[in-house]
Amino acid sequence: MVEKVYGIGVGVGDKELLTLKAKNILEKVDTIFVPISKEGKKSIALEIVRDYIKNKKIIELLFPMTKDKETLKKYWNEASNKIMNESGEVAVLTLGDPTLYSTFSYVWNILKENNIDIEIINGISSPFAAAGRLNIPLVEGDEKLCILPQGKDLERYLDEFDTIVVMKTTNLGEKLKELNDKKDKYVIGIVKKATFEDEKIVYGKIDEIDFDEFKDYLSIAIIKKVK
Amino acid sequence: MVEKVYGIGVGVGDKELLTLKAKNILEKVDTIFVPISKEGKKSIALEIVRDYIKNKKIIELLFPMTKDKETLKKYWNEASNKIMNESGEVAVLTLGDPTLYSTFSYVWNILKENNIDIEIINGISSPFAAAGRLNIPLVEGDEKLCILPQGKDLERYLDEFDTIVVMKTTNLGEKLKELNDKKDKYVIGIVKKATFEDEKIVYGKIDEIDFDEFKDYLSIAIIKKVK
Repeated sequence: MVEKVYGIGVGVGDKELLTLKAKNILEKVDTIFVPISKEGKKSIALEIVRDYIKNKKIIELLFPMTKDKETLKKYWNEASNKIMNESGEVAVLTLGDPTLYSTFSYVWNILKENNIDIEIINGISSPFAAAGRLNIPLVEGDEKLCILPQGKDLERYLDEFDTIVVMKTTNLGEKLKELNDKKDKYVIGIVKKATFEDEKIVYGKIDEIDFDEFKDYLSIAIIKKVK
Repeated sequence: MVEKVYGIGVGVGDKELLTLKAKNILEKVDTIFVPISKEGKKSIALEIVRDYIKNKKIIELLFPMTKDKETLKKYWNEASNKIMNESGEVAVLTLGDPTLYSTFSYVWNILKENNIDIEIINGISSPFAAAGRLNIPLVEGDEKLCILPQGKDLERYLDEFDTIVVMKTTNLGEKLKELNDKKDKYVIGIVKKATFEDEKIVYGKIDEIDFDEFKDYLSIAIIKKVK
């Protein structure tokens, strides 16, 4: 039976953005669980911390990219059982931060139901890395911010929020191009794979952006009203 | 004239939550600018990194807590001038992350207007640290999140967003207690000074919380709809 689970956010592509705490815990634990999206595919989270871990037992957790709830539940339970059946203190890696749309949240609830001792180690999450790379603040003073996965209900909030973060930008171009007369009211920055070696950045008004280049699920858009 | 400015997020109270990158840059630069809110008052950001810096030139930047725009502008310009007139590469510290309601944003815009080379080094920000300490995810799956300073327009978004983060909770109790019949629909976690030694945590329904204990400006509330 596992003694303690560290849910560790490994941050984004830049390996130096790992926290000192994450590094120290990775050096201490015996077993490290890493998320993969497909059998045989590399774990991006593991690649980020690769330089800091040596001689550790690495166990993969498969979280397939499907929307079918029953299938997902099956994999989440399987992953949770793997973690709970390990002995000692273990780390479970997740990209970004464990509290924001993380793969760790899939097992987190199940571990809690089983009264497992959990400690969250925060990591740098992609909206912040994206804003940093764009060299713009997300919000200042008394500005309001919202984060919408896949741009859900974007039309409703465009005028109400000073800044909107869209996670996963697959359909963002289509949504924004429908705005017509409002097009010049917003400026948009999109960062694909923020701080990774193959990072791509664009910044401009709606008509100036080629959205087709940013359909990746690791792309983040930051939409701001022109002041 | 300054060569390069690193806007460094030092994270929250836990000194180990500093990133490796921030630590490396602090060791490299000669001059470190630190924010203070009053003459003679300690810089919290400086205290967090104190163990990692030695023999550095420390310069204070005064950002007084006032809402008077003219006064603020005067201090922001003064701070920016101090930074620009320093030679070599310098670091400017900020609590949390530089992109989210940071003191760094006050000088960021002015430095940009003066074409200063800026690099943002992200840090762990307080809403994430608060969620971690509460042992709850902020958002999962396709949930929507918003961040409202001082709970601005809270009533409008309570039913629309899965999670609402309120930065500065001074009037939060009054706002939530007006909800009457809706009171049992939400569960609230408040963390004062997340990960600091004098951290204080509460979690429960509206009527179960003593909001008077959380009027501090370093308190963060996370409001979630009961599922």
